[in-house]
This record gives sequence, structure tokens and C-alpha cells, in this order.
Amino acid sequence: MATLKVPAHVPAPSEDAEQLHKAFAGWGTNEQLIIDILAHRNAAQRNVIRKVYSEAYGEDLLTSLDKELSSDFERAVMLFTLDPAERDAYLANEATKKFTSSNWVLMEIACTRSSHELFNVRKAYHARYKKSLEEDVAHHTTGDYRKLLVPLVSAFRYEGDDINQTLAKSEAKILRDKISDKCYNDEEVIRILTTRSKAQLNATLNHYNTAFGNAINKDLKADPNDDFLKLLRATIKCLTVPEKYFEKLLRQAINKLGTDEWALTRVVTTRAEVDMERIKEEYHRRNSVTLEKAIAGDTSGDYERMLLALIGAGDC
Amino acid sequence: MATLKVPAHVPAPSEDAEQLHKAFAGWGTNEQLIIDILAHRNAAQRNVIRKVYSEAYGEDLLTSLDKELSSDFERAVMLFTLDPAERDAYLANEATKKFTSSNWVLMEIACTRSSHELFNVRKAYHARYKKSLEEDVAHHTTGDYRKLLVPLVSAFRYEGDDINQTLAKSEAKILRDKISDKCYNDEEVIRILTTRSKAQLNATLNHYNTAFGNAINKDLKADPNDDFLKLLRATIKCLTVPEKYFEKLLRQAINKLGTDEWALTRVVTTRAEVDMERIKEEYHRRNSVTLEKAIAGDTSGDYERMLLALIGAGDC
Repeated sequence: MATLKVPAHVPAPSEDAEQLHKAFAGWGTNEQLIIDILAHRNAAQRNVIRKVYSEAYGEDLLTSLDKELSSDFERAVMLFTLDPAERDAYLANEATKKFTSSNWVLMEIACTRSSHELFNVRKAYHARYKKSLEEDVAHHTTGDYRKLLVPLVSAFRYEGDDINQTLAKSEAKILRDKISDKCYNDEEVIRILTTRSKAQLNATLNHYNTAFGNAINKDLKADPNDDFLKLLRATIKCLTVPEKYFEKLLRQAINKLGTDEWALTRVVTTRAEVDMERIKEEYHRRNSVTLEKAIAGDTSGDYERMLLALIGAGDC
Repeated sequence: MATLKVPAHVPAPSEDAEQLHKAFAGWGTNEQLIIDILAHRNAAQRNVIRKVYSEAYGEDLLTSLDKELSSDFERAVMLFTLDPAERDAYLANEATKKFTSSNWVLMEIACTRSSHELFNVRKAYHARYKKSLEEDVAHHTTGDYRKLLVPLVSAFRYEGDDINQTLAKSEAKILRDKISDKCYNDEEVIRILTTRSKAQLNATLNHYNTAFGNAINKDLKADPNDDFLKLLRATIKCLTVPEKYFEKLLRQAINKLGTDEWALTRVVTTRAEVDMERIKEEYHRRNSVTLEKAIAGDTSGDYERMLLALIGAGDC
């Protein structure tokens, strides 16, 4: 469930656009006004505001935001304002660049979005970068990472509930055999993780657990410092229990010496309209402190206010 | 250009449906009537006829066709009647089955359809088989074939004209180096062929030709009997000169001792609404005989009439 709070009576898009334009005008910027508007409109509403704004003032709203805002607050507002598919395309592109490359972000986008959402990301990627997502991922990765990530971002998984228990059993066995032989990058392991539907994969991993006495991710911890194994475990988490994956990401981002704003902003802006309620619940349970409290304790100013608004703290 | 001929005045779909129903009624079947209707309606029109037919007579038109027709004629009518995305999903599924498996058909569908068409095939595959295309392809292939085919069927290539000449040069060099080392299944070779846009790939292969003195497919003929090399060459042909690929397929299907109806029917039914005019031109040039003549000489009866109608012989 989403944490985004949209007021019962939403002003007309033209009014929102005008208010935003005012917030940028004159000396200083009215950050609170920006938060009050953008952090309380859903994706469809933000798209219309952007359209109306650019028609009225001859400039993309994102360009204006870029001129007026800075640092973490800017990134949070900018990312959230983007349409979800465009935002993911942006994050994925960033993740293939030399200095911001991140296999985790690519995996996260590929595994926690629905099949159609992921396809929309690929379309948005074409439109914005004049290239395909998979070609950039393939070009910027090598070895085992490429073997895993290219099929992950290219997948169009079946999303029905139909599962095949016989197949689940036989593929659980394949996974177990390959993992026992430490063949973590085996093409059969990659095939199963990258092509099966989430429901089918879940059945397979349940069989794994039942038949072999422990969860697959425990067996994948053989070498706790192996980065590829870490990514494999995260992939499995994203595909089966995404809220636990995001909780851990938030926990590590916040507990780090010097908050990891990059990750914090990404999780909050991408999940606020999806499953942030569930992630907050998970966070509270695991950390004995609410996510609101944790974020408030670790961030400040407009950035803090933006994040708290997105995770549904306070009214709108 | 398509060869499909649609009459200037098309009867109402309800009338077409009624005529088809009559064609099936009583003793014997009126095959010519079936050809006159179905081989002269475009995909959108056939879809409406199918819908109207099933509403009026409580049976899918394809089921009726299946009851009334047989052998090669049935396959041709059935394949052509299907919506293009559904038809490709059907052909692709067939190509992953034990006794009808064909890596070539999978490659052909992946490489000669546009990115959006291929995505529609993947959607149709979900709807019909409750699985994803790539999961069946991955499950039913192994080794080098899997390495090539899974990314091919999962691709969503960029389709704009933008190309990067620097990249074309550097990737031409990579291809040349790998081919010189006989590393035909190298992951870089696979990456370039499966992710780059057709325009970009074309630029790369032009550089290859210019810089190294001959076409890549000549270098890929090192071992003329190697099946994987054959498939690689066909992949490159499909991506760059599909009409030449289809011409050769037709030539081999027709010249074979005992026509290869399976291939002949596939090419005619899948290309009649796309680029059959171009393929016919290519065929005539290469064989010094028109495709009409070649098909007429090699097939007979309703099957012959159906194919000739689809390649635009005679009036409608």
C-alpha cells in the first residue's frame, strides 16, 4: 500500500502550476510550497501539472526545479516528480554510468516492478536515451554480472498465478545441485531466476526449503563477502519478498556512518506510491523504531520534510 | 510491401462470417469460398470476422476451420487467419516443442519483427500459454543456442535512426577479433548481435566490411557445416537484409526433394501482409523464375490456391 497522501480536494493543475511558478519567483525559493504540492499529488496528477506548467511558462518543470533546488532535496523532488517509468529509466541509466554504476539498482528495478511496468521503463529508456536499456546494461557490465543482469532487465515474466508443482520440484533440485557444487553462476541457475514467473519461483523456493531443510538464501551465504552472491541473494529477495529487501536497504542507508542519501531517496521516491506502507511496517518490526523517527533523526531541513511527506507522516 | 489483396468493397463482417459458415455446411466444404474470404482480408478485418463468427455460431472460427480442413491447406488457412502476434506466439511455441523444435523459427520471429511487434508476441504468449516466451525458449534450449536465442527473443531494440559511428568502429573490431579467434559464441559477439539497434548493427557491419575487406558472413563461413555458425549467419541476415533471408528460405523449401511445406506456409502466411512484394522481387532475381511459377509448379489444389492468393497472384 502506498503512503502518498493526496488531499480530498486537489486544486486544478493550472493552479498548482501557478503556485509552483510563484514558489520559484523572486529572492529565495518557497520549498515548503513545493513540498505541499508535489509530494501530495499522484503520478497522473504530477504529469498533468508538468504539462500545464511547460505550456504556461515555456520550460519543463524539472528544469525549473533543477535551477531552484539543490543537493539531496533537489534529487528527492526531481525523482518523485518524474513519471514512474521515466524515473526508473533515469535511475537505470545512472546505474550504467561509470561513476554512478550500480548493479543493485538495475537488479532492483528489474525485479520489483511488474512485467508491464518494466516494459514501460524500457520504452521510456528508448525515448529518453535513444538506446535500449539492455544494450546499455550489457555494454557496461561484464562476466557474471552481465549474465545475470541482462536477462533480468529484458524479462517479461508471466504474471498469472498458474504454477507447475512438478517443475517447481525439478528446478528446486537443479538449484540445490548447482549451489552444492558452488556453481552460483551456472546458466541453469540464471535461467530459473531470470525467466520464471514470481509465483512459479516462489513455489520452487518453497520446495527448496522443504526438501533441503533451509532457505536457498542461507545456502547462498557460503562466502558472506562474495559480491556476486550478495547480489544473487538480493535478487531472490526482490523477487519474493520485496518489502524485506527495501527494509534492509533503508536500514543500511540510515544506520550508515553518514546516511546513504542516494539509497534513501531512491527507496522513498520509488515506493511511496507503491508499497511504502508495507515497508514501514517491516521497518518498525525489524528496528523497533518507526521509519518516520529514523528518517527524522538522520536527515534535516527540506530534505527531511520531503521524505516525511512522502512516507505519509502528518497531514496534507 | 504487402502482397495481400483486399477488394475495394469488403462485405460486412457478419456477411463474411455467414458465408464462411455456409462454406462449412452440408456435405463437403467450399474451400474456394474460404480462400476468397480469408485470403483477402487484412488482420484487423479477420479479427472482426472471427469475433462476429464466434458470437453468431458459438464456436471459434479456428475450431471450425480445424474440423473442416486438413493437412497443408488447413495449416495455411489457420496460420493466416490468426492475428499476427498470436500467430507468432503459436509458431514460437511450436518451435520449443520436442518434435517440432526449431531454433531458426525462434530466431526468425525475434529478428524480423519490429520491437513492438515482438513485444506483442510476448504478450500473446502469456495470454495463450500462461508462461513467458523466454522461459520456454530458455527451458528448451541449451549451450550456445540458449546463449543466443534467449536474448534475441527478449530484446526490445531501439528503433530510431540514431547511430554512433565510434561505437560501430570499436564493435566491428571486437567482432573481427573474436571471429578471427573462432570464438563465435563469445559473450561480446552475442551482446552486440542481440542488443544493438538494427541501424547501429548495420553501421557496425558496414565498418566491418570496409575495414577488413569482406562481409562478416563470409568470415562466419569458416566451417560451412557448423550448425551454430549457420544460425549466426541467418541471424545477421534477418537483422540486416530480411528479404534475402526469406528468399533463401523459400528457395530451399521449394527446391527440396519433396517441398518443405512447413517453411513455405510459414513464410507466405507471415510475410503476405508485410514485405512479400520485396521477397518476390528478390526471388525472381535470384531464381530467374517468379515465385508464383515456382509455387504453382511445386504445390497443388487448395493449398496452391491459398498460397497464390496470399502472394497476390490474380485478382480478388
